[in-house]
Amino acid sequence: MGTACIYLNGRIVPLDEATVSPLDIGLLRGYAVFDLLRTVGGRPFLLAEHLQRLRASAARLGLCVPADDDDIALAIDELLDRNGHTEATIRLVLTGGVSPDGLAFDAATPTFLIMTHELHLPPESVYADGTALITEEHRRELPEAKTTNYLTMLQNRPRALEAGALDVLYHDGGTVLEAASASFYIVRGSTILAPTGDVLWGTVGTYVLDAARERYEVVQRDFTVDEAVAADEAFLTSTTRGVVPIVRLDDRSVGDGTVGPVTRYLMGVWREAVSAG
Amino acid sequence: MGTACIYLNGRIVPLDEATVSPLDIGLLRGYAVFDLLRTVGGRPFLLAEHLQRLRASAARLGLCVPADDDDIALAIDELLDRNGHTEATIRLVLTGGVSPDGLAFDAATPTFLIMTHELHLPPESVYADGTALITEEHRRELPEAKTTNYLTMLQNRPRALEAGALDVLYHDGGTVLEAASASFYIVRGSTILAPTGDVLWGTVGTYVLDAARERYEVVQRDFTVDEAVAADEAFLTSTTRGVVPIVRLDDRSVGDGTVGPVTRYLMGVWREAVSAG
Repeated sequence: MGTACIYLNGRIVPLDEATVSPLDIGLLRGYAVFDLLRTVGGRPFLLAEHLQRLRASAARLGLCVPADDDDIALAIDELLDRNGHTEATIRLVLTGGVSPDGLAFDAATPTFLIMTHELHLPPESVYADGTALITEEHRRELPEAKTTNYLTMLQNRPRALEAGALDVLYHDGGTVLEAASASFYIVRGSTILAPTGDVLWGTVGTYVLDAARERYEVVQRDFTVDEAVAADEAFLTSTTRGVVPIVRLDDRSVGDGTVGPVTRYLMGVWREAVSAG
Repeated sequence: MGTACIYLNGRIVPLDEATVSPLDIGLLRGYAVFDLLRTVGGRPFLLAEHLQRLRASAARLGLCVPADDDDIALAIDELLDRNGHTEATIRLVLTGGVSPDGLAFDAATPTFLIMTHELHLPPESVYADGTALITEEHRRELPEAKTTNYLTMLQNRPRALEAGALDVLYHDGGTVLEAASASFYIVRGSTILAPTGDVLWGTVGTYVLDAARERYEVVQRDFTVDEAVAADEAFLTSTTRGVVPIVRLDDRSVGDGTVGPVTRYLMGVWREAVSAG
């Protein structure tokens, strides 16, 4: 089912009655953060972690989420109940609220939205055969916060679609940072390399790397796009997509261009987490 | 008077009936551009130039302004008439429109808003004595487009207010680019230096520099924050503020810290333009 109702500033309302002011500073100045989680078995998954990240993003912008975790959990439950998805993505958006002059805002009166949508996963072939990313030189403006600024991502989306790529891998002068909507890691032998740079903390990445440490060495160190191409394996992690093997960067194969054993293992770890719920 | 009515997608509506969907990609992803002009004698000033810039910003994002110049001029006239300002700022905002999945948008169905507000100029002392800017290392993401992304500006606004600064001057590794909401120039002897870098084309800057060429040399070349401090004069240009002398960058005086003759001349050029309307 579609999105019949959304949560807006403490109330659940039908979508067509849920409206935002044209003077909202989230619209006028892009001053907003968000987070996105998914359901597993119809229940919000890793909710506490995502709410913690949302609050951290908000704090970075001098904003405050105007509801406690329990209230948010109740609102999400009601939305899921009313909207009736099989599995859902849950998007929480927080802006600085209405700004009459387009500059000043009152952190005490933010705009807080929660929306649910049917979860759509990539086709199974993406997991079986791996997929591609395109690369783009870009450093996000406030990398430690999940802001709504996706200008560079949306600008590159047509190119990604044309290349059959799942996402855009950002690098800074060749040094890999993160994908536009995912974390990115490479594998050399039995070592997993994780960028140390200014990137968003990833819930799925954290989850699977914690599990990976039982079998593999996880090293925080920066690497270049060329090193990623020369690596044995590469994969991304994302809330909605889980662990996805990356076998091509632009026109270049990663390693031998096939899905490797470490990525397969981590895909299994995630699949298990998601089936256990 | 306040903003009683706004223009939204072809209609003039009361502000409290003018609503934007929570699924607007301008809100969800910051995918939007805008422009801002002012009235002189109650009439839109340099409207053609601002509409040209809005269309250029839109094109950079793959968007298209869904009205021709004449229709926009008529809409602005009606807004000004209904809202009854003494002098007004006119803000035009264009987003990618409603995006059910927060990624895809249809350029044929954008959200197009026009709002007017009472024009507020800085106090006369700012022009008489000059004012300050704070500096911040930052390169805007799509500098040639006037996007709604003002994260860095709003993050720095409390610091600017505390320092008594009018705006934030962006530099890239020390090389001056532009202020967050203004163009920036320095003067050495009878030469005006204008940054060549990736900055937004400024309507007021273009207007006064064209006039300045009759008396002064205008040279396009990059300069550093240190060079700006060591210059004889510095000034910014902005749609709403005109030509403003800048006598301090952070804690450092520009030149001897007073308003210089070239800036005074250009302030006069602008004052004349604005009084001639």
